[in-house]
Amino acid sequence: MEKITVTLGERSYPITIDAGLFNNPASFWPLQAGDRAMVVTNQTLAPRYLDPLCNLLEKAGVRVDQVILPDGEQYKTLAVMDQVFTALLEKNHGRDSTLIALGGGVIGDLTGFAAASYQRGVRFIQVPTTLLSQVDSSVGGKTAVNHPLGKNMIGAFYQPASVVIDIDCLRSLPPRELASGLAEVIKYGIILDAEFFNWLEENLDALLTLDSRALAYCIRRCCELKAEVVAADEHEHGQRALLNLGHTFGHAIEAHMGYGNWLHGEAVAAGMVMAARTAERLGQFSTEDTDRIIALLSRAGLPVTGPESMATTDYMPHMLRDKKVLAGELRLVLPLALGRAEVRSGVSHDRVLAAIDDCQKSAL
Amino acid sequence: MEKITVTLGERSYPITIDAGLFNNPASFWPLQAGDRAMVVTNQTLAPRYLDPLCNLLEKAGVRVDQVILPDGEQYKTLAVMDQVFTALLEKNHGRDSTLIALGGGVIGDLTGFAAASYQRGVRFIQVPTTLLSQVDSSVGGKTAVNHPLGKNMIGAFYQPASVVIDIDCLRSLPPRELASGLAEVIKYGIILDAEFFNWLEENLDALLTLDSRALAYCIRRCCELKAEVVAADEHEHGQRALLNLGHTFGHAIEAHMGYGNWLHGEAVAAGMVMAARTAERLGQFSTEDTDRIIALLSRAGLPVTGPESMATTDYMPHMLRDKKVLAGELRLVLPLALGRAEVRSGVSHDRVLAAIDDCQKSAL
Repeated sequence: MEKITVTLGERSYPITIDAGLFNNPASFWPLQAGDRAMVVTNQTLAPRYLDPLCNLLEKAGVRVDQVILPDGEQYKTLAVMDQVFTALLEKNHGRDSTLIALGGGVIGDLTGFAAASYQRGVRFIQVPTTLLSQVDSSVGGKTAVNHPLGKNMIGAFYQPASVVIDIDCLRSLPPRELASGLAEVIKYGIILDAEFFNWLEENLDALLTLDSRALAYCIRRCCELKAEVVAADEHEHGQRALLNLGHTFGHAIEAHMGYGNWLHGEAVAAGMVMAARTAERLGQFSTEDTDRIIALLSRAGLPVTGPESMATTDYMPHMLRDKKVLAGELRLVLPLALGRAEVRSGVSHDRVLAAIDDCQKSAL
Repeated sequence: MEKITVTLGERSYPITIDAGLFNNPASFWPLQAGDRAMVVTNQTLAPRYLDPLCNLLEKAGVRVDQVILPDGEQYKTLAVMDQVFTALLEKNHGRDSTLIALGGGVIGDLTGFAAASYQRGVRFIQVPTTLLSQVDSSVGGKTAVNHPLGKNMIGAFYQPASVVIDIDCLRSLPPRELASGLAEVIKYGIILDAEFFNWLEENLDALLTLDSRALAYCIRRCCELKAEVVAADEHEHGQRALLNLGHTFGHAIEAHMGYGNWLHGEAVAAGMVMAARTAERLGQFSTEDTDRIIALLSRAGLPVTGPESMATTDYMPHMLRDKKVLAGELRLVLPLALGRAEVRSGVSHDRVLAAIDDCQKSAL
């Protein structure tokens, strides 16, 4: 079992990483006998995980209710979140209840925001079931729902009480979802850890075949990197923004294509190549390193260009709604080298559009 | 000009109380030239205040947009709040924008929660225009919207950057709204300040005729009392719950009658009498003091019994959804004397129902 702590004073919390966690009620700390909980999950995951989890917790003396939401990014909305509130109120859950987010990033983000908002804040536990949510969205307390005009525009910084990562969940993950998670994994290498990027080049095949040791190491390393960044900058006044590499471009793709058509990691993969090309045009990143990024993303089965149906001019209106925009000015995360990145303002829109063009033309 | 500070470390903020504040851009600190702001108000207030406020701010170099919501408690919903997000996104407001809540408690609560949630948190300024919001809801950072199954069930603790209280706003307030505010004013006397209760008995007529000096003193004293309570217990782990005197009963009335039919202060007034009767039945409060409360509320034009159409048995299902409920048990704020109150668990439901009956029968 791997244990990491996200260090945030009295709001610090553990991340537990192992196989077989669903067989041990102690995994779901800090729940204890006599507590009430509401499991939030989706229609795809419910048949597989809901009964085992509820039975485990009930045997441990926790009174568990459940709410099952439709599956997909297009359901990460205020209106769907309201179904969680209705379920909580119908069952008279109080301020002392605990929400359990059982699912991927959509369930985790929505449930976290519901926990932040229900009666102005109740406890919640993240149980991420996808690689993407295990290495990224379940750690760090960013919760949100989407708005038709922008992704993750409505939410809260709200930390979970614990994160429970069961590697066994990845065995039933569709390959496209696994690849989407690998985009965020590769992101950590590019922005923070060149050695980890090298490790990924050497071990990608083991990850794709779900080798347990490779997975456990990979997830632990990503969670460690994220925990360090979050502990240093919880509310994204500085360094935390680096975690958004590729996301300003990627969010534009997701919004333009309609949520759920491009997976988040797919859009981020293409967006990271666009960021690398922008950095190249600014003379701060080498073509060789961009090629290494493209090669690794491609091996993972990820797109390295934007959607064919999306014109270069379609990007900017979405990008200007990015949460990093300040005083109307675009701020981009750009790589400086493998393992190092910066947040940069003042890049001309023409240069950004040219880099998107480069990306579309130059796929390996 | 009266100035009070709500002391909350780096989130401390000023409350400014005066007449004529809408003529001085400095009132709207911390807004400054170059800032962007979104004024949120309702259809009733917009014709009176919106143009003067926007003109004042624009002359001071603030770029102001506006969103006008329908007027009424029944519109304090997630769906209506979404209109604020749409307006912000359509105008490309970023994380550096400021929301201005121009209105009563509904606008303040909804706008505050919108500010807490938009891009995970932007600055906001409370400009309360009703007595109720000036003495209560604009101070202390409780923000929320209603759910069909419970009032203020979805929200956040999120402090404003400043509170701007212009007494002139009360001159155009309908008498029923003024009375509703007086219910919260009288509440402060009952729970925290016997001397202030005496002052209210002596000065209620001056308040009802909108005497400026009486209003300014009254609002300042209420804000002082609230600021002290909030500074000591921001997230309502203890003492702050006292501010909910009458609210558990009152919320039941509001929910049962349909939001907006009984004004909040009207429901709280009846609820405070029910709480006093409950305390009498527990032998901890005198009939004479209840009679003084009833007399003062009646002079203010407030109800001192619940709705005739509401049966005693209609109360409990709503009361059990109260946010103070812990482990399924009702917790009530009950007076101990004029100027002192406590939060009490373990009062039998029968006793509470009998007290509601007392209240219905015993109106002066």
